[in-house]
Amino acid sequence: MIEHPAFTCEAWRVTEVGLNLEVLAQSESVFALSNGHIGVRGNLDEGEPHGLPGTYLAGFYELRPLPAAETAYGQSESSQTVVNVTNGKLIRLLVDDEPFDVRYGEAHSHRRVLDFRAGTLRREAVWESPGCRTVAVRSTRLVSLTQRAIVAICYEVEALSHDLRIVVQSELVANEVLPDGPAPRAQEAQGVEVADPRAAASLEDPLVGLRHGGNDGRSLLIHRTRASGLTVAAAMAHEVLEAPDDREVLTETLADVARTSVIATLRPGQRIRFVKYVSYGWSAQRSLPALEDQVAGAIYAARHAGFGGLLAEQRAYLDRFWKRADVEVEGDDEIQQAVRFALFHVLQAGARGETRAIAAKGLTGSGYDGHAFSDTESFVLPVLTATAPAAASDALRWRHSILPLALDRAAQLGLKGADFPWRTIHGEECSGYWPASTAAFHINADIADAAIRFMDSTGDDAFAAAQGVDLLVHTARLWYSLGHFDDGRGFRIDGVTGPDEYSAVADNNVYTNLMAQQNLRAAIELARRFPDRAEQLGVGDDELDGWRRAADEMVIPYDEEAGIHPQADGYSRHQVWDFAHTRDDQYPLMLHFPYFDLYRKQVVKQADLVLALHMRGDAFTPEEKLRNFDYYETITVRDSSLSACTQSIVAAEVGHMDLAYDYLSEAALMDLGDLEHNTRDGLHMASLAGTWLALVAGLGGMRDAGGRLCFSPRLPSGLGRLCFRMLRRGLRLKVDVSGRDVTYSLQRDPEHPQAPPSLTFCHYGEELTVEVGDQVRRTVPPLKAIPAPRQPRGRAPERRDGPRRRFPRPEGTDMVEEWGLESFPASDPPAP
Amino acid sequence: MIEHPAFTCEAWRVTEVGLNLEVLAQSESVFALSNGHIGVRGNLDEGEPHGLPGTYLAGFYELRPLPAAETAYGQSESSQTVVNVTNGKLIRLLVDDEPFDVRYGEAHSHRRVLDFRAGTLRREAVWESPGCRTVAVRSTRLVSLTQRAIVAICYEVEALSHDLRIVVQSELVANEVLPDGPAPRAQEAQGVEVADPRAAASLEDPLVGLRHGGNDGRSLLIHRTRASGLTVAAAMAHEVLEAPDDREVLTETLADVARTSVIATLRPGQRIRFVKYVSYGWSAQRSLPALEDQVAGAIYAARHAGFGGLLAEQRAYLDRFWKRADVEVEGDDEIQQAVRFALFHVLQAGARGETRAIAAKGLTGSGYDGHAFSDTESFVLPVLTATAPAAASDALRWRHSILPLALDRAAQLGLKGADFPWRTIHGEECSGYWPASTAAFHINADIADAAIRFMDSTGDDAFAAAQGVDLLVHTARLWYSLGHFDDGRGFRIDGVTGPDEYSAVADNNVYTNLMAQQNLRAAIELARRFPDRAEQLGVGDDELDGWRRAADEMVIPYDEEAGIHPQADGYSRHQVWDFAHTRDDQYPLMLHFPYFDLYRKQVVKQADLVLALHMRGDAFTPEEKLRNFDYYETITVRDSSLSACTQSIVAAEVGHMDLAYDYLSEAALMDLGDLEHNTRDGLHMASLAGTWLALVAGLGGMRDAGGRLCFSPRLPSGLGRLCFRMLRRGLRLKVDVSGRDVTYSLQRDPEHPQAPPSLTFCHYGEELTVEVGDQVRRTVPPLKAIPAPRQPRGRAPERRDGPRRRFPRPEGTDMVEEWGLESFPASDPPAP
Repeated sequence: MIEHPAFTCEAWRVTEVGLNLEVLAQSESVFALSNGHIGVRGNLDEGEPHGLPGTYLAGFYELRPLPAAETAYGQSESSQTVVNVTNGKLIRLLVDDEPFDVRYGEAHSHRRVLDFRAGTLRREAVWESPGCRTVAVRSTRLVSLTQRAIVAICYEVEALSHDLRIVVQSELVANEVLPDGPAPRAQEAQGVEVADPRAAASLEDPLVGLRHGGNDGRSLLIHRTRASGLTVAAAMAHEVLEAPDDREVLTETLADVARTSVIATLRPGQRIRFVKYVSYGWSAQRSLPALEDQVAGAIYAARHAGFGGLLAEQRAYLDRFWKRADVEVEGDDEIQQAVRFALFHVLQAGARGETRAIAAKGLTGSGYDGHAFSDTESFVLPVLTATAPAAASDALRWRHSILPLALDRAAQLGLKGADFPWRTIHGEECSGYWPASTAAFHINADIADAAIRFMDSTGDDAFAAAQGVDLLVHTARLWYSLGHFDDGRGFRIDGVTGPDEYSAVADNNVYTNLMAQQNLRAAIELARRFPDRAEQLGVGDDELDGWRRAADEMVIPYDEEAGIHPQADGYSRHQVWDFAHTRDDQYPLMLHFPYFDLYRKQVVKQADLVLALHMRGDAFTPEEKLRNFDYYETITVRDSSLSACTQSIVAAEVGHMDLAYDYLSEAALMDLGDLEHNTRDGLHMASLAGTWLALVAGLGGMRDAGGRLCFSPRLPSGLGRLCFRMLRRGLRLKVDVSGRDVTYSLQRDPEHPQAPPSLTFCHYGEELTVEVGDQVRRTVPPLKAIPAPRQPRGRAPERRDGPRRRFPRPEGTDMVEEWGLESFPASDPPAP
Repeated sequence: MIEHPAFTCEAWRVTEVGLNLEVLAQSESVFALSNGHIGVRGNLDEGEPHGLPGTYLAGFYELRPLPAAETAYGQSESSQTVVNVTNGKLIRLLVDDEPFDVRYGEAHSHRRVLDFRAGTLRREAVWESPGCRTVAVRSTRLVSLTQRAIVAICYEVEALSHDLRIVVQSELVANEVLPDGPAPRAQEAQGVEVADPRAAASLEDPLVGLRHGGNDGRSLLIHRTRASGLTVAAAMAHEVLEAPDDREVLTETLADVARTSVIATLRPGQRIRFVKYVSYGWSAQRSLPALEDQVAGAIYAARHAGFGGLLAEQRAYLDRFWKRADVEVEGDDEIQQAVRFALFHVLQAGARGETRAIAAKGLTGSGYDGHAFSDTESFVLPVLTATAPAAASDALRWRHSILPLALDRAAQLGLKGADFPWRTIHGEECSGYWPASTAAFHINADIADAAIRFMDSTGDDAFAAAQGVDLLVHTARLWYSLGHFDDGRGFRIDGVTGPDEYSAVADNNVYTNLMAQQNLRAAIELARRFPDRAEQLGVGDDELDGWRRAADEMVIPYDEEAGIHPQADGYSRHQVWDFAHTRDDQYPLMLHFPYFDLYRKQVVKQADLVLALHMRGDAFTPEEKLRNFDYYETITVRDSSLSACTQSIVAAEVGHMDLAYDYLSEAALMDLGDLEHNTRDGLHMASLAGTWLALVAGLGGMRDAGGRLCFSPRLPSGLGRLCFRMLRRGLRLKVDVSGRDVTYSLQRDPEHPQAPPSLTFCHYGEELTVEVGDQVRRTVPPLKAIPAPRQPRGRAPERRDGPRRRFPRPEGTDMVEEWGLESFPASDPPAP
């Protein structure tokens, strides 16, 4: 928990006042910049102190062995892991003889600002060296959303006291030493310490230097990974904007370091100010000269735009985004900030992914080895589909690109169709524990669901014909081969794992079966819409008929006695976890209890049946939803960041508005508040996306099952207004909820001139058609009061109507306005 | 499969004629000698060629890391593995300048004989060196059953041509280089080879030399393991019986080698003949001088007896054993030999274990890392209980000795009572895959069952009071905490794994629940019989009442529609494995299909529900047994050596006599025929024990549920007579079945003078009481013909009534009778 007021509460940015080294790693994640292709953590310019140094490239990985105590057929023997590539953001500073390091001397002031509209991380520090020399350091960093290969930094140092001999060293550094991972655990019972050092060892010095060189402030490093054989090139160039005339500029390179130094003596008030352009490229196939040209070309293009040009492009890109995507919240400034923070980072994770995976942590940290899971399809893509559909399309095209591997994996497992990996970077299965990976087949239906939602939302027939049919047909085949008809008793899917990671390998997981049913039906529909492609894929009438029967006869267990849906066969007969005797410090449970015990009892880590209530709401009556939600509330502990947002959504639907608000807040503050104590490893993309989902699908009541867009908005007592936007079929729809008034308004999006002239959707079951330029006003129906459900002892969410201690408003002057960034556009208030 | 006639078919021994290097490793297992404390594989005296060199000490292990791809609470991080200790059986020979090695020159004859009554491995070879020098080599090896620390070898070399310069080198060798384990597997899909070499690496040079020394033909090596810190001492001494007067004897030692050489020149017909005494001791605690004295003292005692004395003691020990244990089979010489082979090795595994574990492979090989599993309690201990009860008592006292570790493990898992490790040497859990280990709680009921059987059979109240109560109370507590009362619907045990390793983590496994029920009831009874001990253990009336309710209300799933018991909840709704499309070369299935697929379908690796039919036969009606047996026959593939004997037993009970005979034969020939292709790693103790069980519990129909001894013997058409013996309450009971006549006769056992004067038991439900010295004759009731069940395609057992190709009778003269072993007692025909 970030208990101290590390970050201020502002509508369009996150400011850190002072530098708290205890939460340095967390702030590096919060202040990470990315365009979906390059990710740089918010490490200090001078590199040290650091929590976790990190520069990542989407899709760039090294292999490491996956150890197993007992080998088994079909088990992955190696994993892919994200690599901390060449660090291009490093700018060291010598003040007289002393290195600028905030751990020494005294920082008179220190501020960092992440600006959601400018797309920049700015920093200002006034530092007095141990030798009593004082300088001001200012930097503005961006990862360009418009020039995919580019990181740019404007760096400035100003002498505030004395005449100072200044050396600024701007570097590229490969094979940075990373802090140790979790400590090896001792097996005390056997009297010896047995550790497995390989996970870390394999990534010591992961990059082998292939080429280095440079001069005149420009330089280049090219490296290759040892096992995966991927080549990465990093180049930098410098543009000195201001410096004393007698400055000297030197450039030198070694295999793992390229360094451009600016040496000068500054009188008080004098500055050195320069722009550093860094470009990255990597490939598994292209030659060294080709890569070298690629990164050099990217640098030329960036210099051609100039730092001011890059800032302007960045701003324009984000202005377009916010016009489609902004969510306004009145009555809770922290949630207002949090949802924009969330949208900004979700956009950063996917903006320029371009057929690479969107990882669970985006490119903000090395958590989960940089792997992508089904979180992306279930949480992140619904947000991108509504706000940045091109990014959603890229992510789905990545899934399509790994279909050959998914077909192979299914065949290896004796199944038909495609089986996508539970966790991966490149496409191969990277999990070492099959009950929570291989058995979690629902990921295939989650991918299908994301594709269906994307097609419904965008109406993108080109995607449907080129990628959609393939994805749906191959996943439908998987389900048909995975389940079986039980002799007149229905189509069963046995021995699989649903979303809840405190259960595994059960029969007829309701979520899985309902999602498979939707997958099968959508595949039939798409195969009929695109008969030529279906024929190429060998889909015949018999196969379609089989899918239809399987979908129609899908077994959905129901406990008549309890009046609820068990998560899977027999679930409601299991012992309920002994919450009364579980201490607060025993959460998360998986760190204090064995899986065997968690699996066999009624205790839910993250929404599973409740996720089904959201994703397949059409399969439940309102009464079933209420009973199910209330039942699962009593056994859900939210040891996963993937739960609160779903609980918020369904709580809102069944009428627990205050609870919905509480869960929304938990999802929204997951990373700004470091609620799970692992923000240091990177941001929780799915929970960030979940903030938007909790607002739009939860409070806004947005559903789009079967392509039918519906809203049933309702605000909790604590909020005065909620206004959200989304792109639908190329039109901008704005939903503005104030108290019990709802206004729907429709506008064209300049980038979609072919969009239809009107949009039809539902408001609380009433079908509305709105024309472009029009708006329609409706009322929220009254809500019948129902008793609040109960959570396990100590696991109720924090009440949002209590006092708020975190994120005070910023104090003092606003440094950004003070900065002398006269040559660049400032970060202005948002366009109306 | 040992296809060639490697081993002859003889009633009281196994002879190998010629030396087939292709089955060298298998023959090393078959010819292994052990007394339960020391085990030496049947490696050639001269050490090479070898399949797998092996000398093992019960309980002596090294630690190795248990790697895990994803760590989890409660997961073992290190494993124990059996160590190949100092090799004391090595005797090398130089003939002129050439080392005796059967791979070079020519072996004119080569025979080895394992003698079940003498308890020796004898060898005779006539070898011509590449230089055309011919010698005869003869050796007799024993691991003493009466002097626990002793291995003794009488070795003889005779010149058959020329005057030969002979050097015999008798050695102790530590840290022998072992052949590589299974090759690392390549992850081809990712283009790199990722191997985990540690399992092997950790045991390269496992022993650190602490002390060495020697002279005058006596020497000593003391070593310690690196991680487990156990100390092992090996000593040897020599007694030259015959050699030319000018022989020289030299002794020298290094850290890892002690060597006594005898050098002489032999004229044709002249011999060198000596006895080598080797003694072993190990300890985790005792000092070096104490260990040194211990092994020296053992050597002195052995020399005091002399080789002839050791042979005589061995013979007398085995004569006593066979009088209690022998099984006679008429009509099938191979089964006759196999059951004696089996009894001999089962005795060897347990004879002098003395509170160490009996491993799955005994001390015949390093398979399964030398671990003990529940096989020992379920299969091996019933045999030892009836034939060598002191050995069974030792094994159960070992379980009692590790109760503190089992209590800790249960507490670690959040359970009450004791949870015994699934696989271990010393007592800690050594499994790395929890669904097939931690979840297989039935091992606790299996241990309880073995204790109950032992107490019923022996009436050993001292054991009951000192160990029995503890074992039963602590395991009963486990069950009570593991299950839960489901609100009037019974006591459920969810999420556990039964014996069948093609299923895991299911609810209400019938075998587990029935065995737990028996465990709870027996614990109540014993706690009432020994109220003082029960009080010390804190057992009160409330606890007993809880156990009683749990036992009475135990959930036993039943499928009304199919008329069978599902192996666990929902099992009979699962898809039946596609046997029709499974190729013969895809067995064993676990090497060709993932666990997720095996677990979720109806396919049985080894008897599970059928094991319940045997172990808890009292819980099923005869009709249920027949229907269940026939049902499970259709889905059981016997990919485990632990299945055929149980299927044989239940087949006999339900009336499939020919099938019972087929399965009996499969169990009996498992190792002599190498049916599972892994006899090289050691013998399958449970399958060897299963041979006896299939004859006695199967064809003999012996049951002892609830302490009530019953027989319902019946022979298959292929057998003319079956006569078996067992010790019961200190009395020797002989059951002699010929055609449809059964004769029960009772004798005193000299070692049990206090035994009662009569024994009461049942014959086909009729209660009989037989006095000592009397015999009673009864008839086998007629059997109603029933249709034979069907097995999965290609998985029916080999028909026993077909032609038998293996194990021809021995050809040529019998070398043992030819040997000039005048100074030692010869291996005579058995005492009547």
